[in-house]
Amino acid sequence: MTRDRTTPQDWWSTAIIDMQPGMIRYRGYAVEELIGRVSFAAMVYLLTRGELPDPAAARLLEAALVAAVDHGPQAPSIAAARMAITCGVGINNAMASAINMLGDVHGGAGEQCVRFYHAIAARMDDGRLPLAEAVAAEMAALAGQGTRHVPGFGHRFHPRDPRAPRLLELVDAAAAAGAVSGRFAAIARAVEARLAADKGRPIPMNIDGATGVVFAELGFAPELCRGLFVLSRSVGALAHAFEELNSGERNKGPIPRHLIWTYTGPPPRALTEEKK
Amino acid sequence: MTRDRTTPQDWWSTAIIDMQPGMIRYRGYAVEELIGRVSFAAMVYLLTRGELPDPAAARLLEAALVAAVDHGPQAPSIAAARMAITCGVGINNAMASAINMLGDVHGGAGEQCVRFYHAIAARMDDGRLPLAEAVAAEMAALAGQGTRHVPGFGHRFHPRDPRAPRLLELVDAAAAAGAVSGRFAAIARAVEARLAADKGRPIPMNIDGATGVVFAELGFAPELCRGLFVLSRSVGALAHAFEELNSGERNKGPIPRHLIWTYTGPPPRALTEEKK
Amino acid sequence: MTRDRTTPQDWWSTAIIDMQPGMIRYRGYAVEELIGRVSFAAMVYLLTRGELPDPAAARLLEAALVAAVDHGPQAPSIAAARMAITCGVGINNAMASAINMLGDVHGGAGEQCVRFYHAIAARMDDGRLPLAEAVAAEMAALAGQGTRHVPGFGHRFHPRDPRAPRLLELVDAAAAAGAVSGRFAAIARAVEARLAADKGRPIPMNIDGATGVVFAELGFAPELCRGLFVLSRSVGALAHAFEELNSGERNKGPIPRHLIWTYTGPPPRALTEEKK
Amino acid sequence: MTRDRTTPQDWWSTAIIDMQPGMIRYRGYAVEELIGRVSFAAMVYLLTRGELPDPAAARLLEAALVAAVDHGPQAPSIAAARMAITCGVGINNAMASAINMLGDVHGGAGEQCVRFYHAIAARMDDGRLPLAEAVAAEMAALAGQGTRHVPGFGHRFHPRDPRAPRLLELVDAAAAAGAVSGRFAAIARAVEARLAADKGRPIPMNIDGATGVVFAELGFAPELCRGLFVLSRSVGALAHAFEELNSGERNKGPIPRHLIWTYTGPPPRALTEEKK
Repeated sequence: MTRDRTTPQDWWSTAIIDMQPGMIRYRGYAVEELIGRVSFAAMVYLLTRGELPDPAAARLLEAALVAAVDHGPQAPSIAAARMAITCGVGINNAMASAINMLGDVHGGAGEQCVRFYHAIAARMDDGRLPLAEAVAAEMAALAGQGTRHVPGFGHRFHPRDPRAPRLLELVDAAAAAGAVSGRFAAIARAVEARLAADKGRPIPMNIDGATGVVFAELGFAPELCRGLFVLSRSVGALAHAFEELNSGERNKGPIPRHLIWTYTGPPPRALTEEKK
Repeated sequence: MTRDRTTPQDWWSTAIIDMQPGMIRYRGYAVEELIGRVSFAAMVYLLTRGELPDPAAARLLEAALVAAVDHGPQAPSIAAARMAITCGVGINNAMASAINMLGDVHGGAGEQCVRFYHAIAARMDDGRLPLAEAVAAEMAALAGQGTRHVPGFGHRFHPRDPRAPRLLELVDAAAAAGAVSGRFAAIARAVEARLAADKGRPIPMNIDGATGVVFAELGFAPELCRGLFVLSRSVGALAHAFEELNSGERNKGPIPRHLIWTYTGPPPRALTEEKK
Repeated sequence: MTRDRTTPQDWWSTAIIDMQPGMIRYRGYAVEELIGRVSFAAMVYLLTRGELPDPAAARLLEAALVAAVDHGPQAPSIAAARMAITCGVGINNAMASAINMLGDVHGGAGEQCVRFYHAIAARMDDGRLPLAEAVAAEMAALAGQGTRHVPGFGHRFHPRDPRAPRLLELVDAAAAAGAVSGRFAAIARAVEARLAADKGRPIPMNIDGATGVVFAELGFAPELCRGLFVLSRSVGALAHAFEELNSGERNKGPIPRHLIWTYTGPPPRALTEEKK
Repeated sequence: MTRDRTTPQDWWSTAIIDMQPGMIRYRGYAVEELIGRVSFAAMVYLLTRGELPDPAAARLLEAALVAAVDHGPQAPSIAAARMAITCGVGINNAMASAINMLGDVHGGAGEQCVRFYHAIAARMDDGRLPLAEAVAAEMAALAGQGTRHVPGFGHRFHPRDPRAPRLLELVDAAAAAGAVSGRFAAIARAVEARLAADKGRPIPMNIDGATGVVFAELGFAPELCRGLFVLSRSVGALAHAFEELNSGERNKGPIPRHLIWTYTGPPPRALTEEKK
């Protein structure tokens, strides 16, 4: 087998980083040239995309990263970071506990939303449908798969998510300046309009729908969108872990101890015989 | 007990985020005012410190975050992210796997280094020792505790870490402009000089020693320093996880399959009787 | 909303455990009656299924749990546990790192295999197909979905997995004694026969195929099958983490440092302008 | 350097498992001989200790593993498993989230308790102190280090932990049969007596104090004790994750949404200038 003749050096290969003693290059650039000259957001772009962004793209990415840093200790991820710290693990373990919960349901909406926008775009490009029809067709397809929520729209807590309009405003400005196409902003707004018409009440774009527009405009692959959300939310996880660490609480569960939980199982019963 | 009368609302409390339906404020600032107006690094500062940094502080923090994004798949954390992705978990789980490994030995040197710098500063302030004597005293104390490596100095792979001099150059510039005191840069250089004199060869500052200078100059608590390193390295974890995802590899272990490992245990033996 | 009127006690509810100060009951049984009277495997069954198993079922479950404890440090999960320990995290964090990798590709084959057996059984029951035809139809369906490997059959390393025949032998004995139906053993053997006929060479049942037979005979839901594998493999993760801890190694990556990796990215290039 | 000449095979070495195509041996025993003949608890012992336990030791270990499986969703670990499942991650990721929280404060008491028992034993052996004096000396040493809780004694919820007396009863029976020395049971009871005398009220042995007696009698190293607790609690994590999975809840935080949390930070304030 080919695999069996693989040498250990070949086993791990990467186009991200080249390293020799005394030398570190990311995507070809020497680390010492990057430090102090590119923003953290530009570095995120370089490592994940292979090239440095132009300044307008870097600013848009930065805005999206800023927007999603935290949604408070009522989110499972942030609660996990706080609970973990009170259990006596390291701050990195607490952050990992938070991030580990950003799964399909909690952190995955951005990724799903970008796939949804791409599918609409594909109906326009390949199917030659006009925008409104492409949106209607893709929403029907989603409903046909039994998906109850359109990813990126509506929020259980916020009737109107304050982060979305501000992000769209920045995309519009970038589109006006020719930095991005503005196509995905138009798609997202068409989805919003269609949803309002279908439901008879607004189901406004949420943080995932809006960062999804940014990421799609910038050309990020859907899988990276969840990763970008993770980077952003890691900031909140760190801040909450550190705040909890300073509280000195120990072994703190989700609710006050005297409340515990509701038990719904069988009533007390005896073990009649040895079961080994 | 006081605890028992805690209401569920009091159970989680935070000064980081305030939220009402339609409203999100971080440290008092409305999220929609922050988006597009503060950098991602400034947002990290705001959430962890409570106030927005001045521009010079934000740029220094940004430089440190840029510097530590990746050290390749030979680092346990990055290898873990890549291995995890080939196991079929989500990209957030792969990133969590990486971050979960940034413990005392892998990610903790920055935190330990800042504590070390603080201890030297305390010997200068409280003990009224001059810099060189404070360094010598603290290094002796470290050696007395059996610590073999001075945290933040020397590197197993890089004879001279290319990231450190560039970061110190930026700290010097900020100190010259009056943005930071430059005190911790001086402490770190005195440690470097003392180490070279003691060992008879250079043991240069590494990434942890240099980001430790940045973080100490900016006033970050030691525990946050590991957290900032985690944020930075998360970028590498994401990039490597995504690259591995695109490779299509499945269930990939640390070394090629035909090499396996060395077995050092007992020779084959028979189980002579049932052991239940 | 109903949800909004939920009290904190109702927020978490469980049929698994009831607790009052001084009293702990699992599924109705007082913990002090269970300790020393039921096996660890029986406890696993009680907590996950709601009832204590009969002794034959407990023995079969125990055999499956014993079978999957370890597959060595070349498995991503076990390598992760060892690497994590050298990074200075707690032994629980190292075990979590291992378990976190037992995703769809690494730990999920048992779950997929039980679903596959159930689908064949459904074709026999609902579709009234004889065994061989049900197997052929379900394998065709699997191939039609683009699945290249039949879950539970074939192994990249073992031409014949030594764990599978022994487990099947125990299932046969339990079926002969009337403790289980033996139906899923028959299904698995029919799959094995069909695979050999299709490929012209044996693709024997592996550990996942064999534990899948045990779990399906015992009536475990597919999702629990991955969980049972996790419990089993956690033993190996613990043993390897502890062995590595005793080695005293620090910050140990997947391959020796001098081998590093292959770099496949762009050649060295200069950063021509500031990108902030 | 010696390390640099390490071959990839030498990089990972283990005395736990030997493997060749078609052959798997744990500590020298062929896996197919172990399956169906040793209990799961005996397998835990073999992998972590290197030898199979005698039947009395296996039964004691099994009792300790049975005793600690679950303490309900008010424990951070179990809450984490349940919350993680509602976020859409795999059942292994949910279990890892639970286990990752079993740190020094939540899961570490058993390990700390065994170290404490060993320290008392050392004062008897090396310091030639009688039991009561060795206990008093070690408790004074603990208090001198600022440790407020004696690990393994007292419980925030249970005035009397129902698991402890039953485990001690089994240790006593094993000691009477000559299977264990009973020394650590005597030490633990002397600690309990001393605590009651010091505090003027009972501070009874808890689950960690009692499993600590079992593990110390069986000769487990302290670090393994946390690992054994992790194995045990993983059963509860699995059961709760599966129960929550069947509830169909999505993205479920620690408390009902309308309760959220208390905000203690700065009042609303405006961002006066761009901060980039």
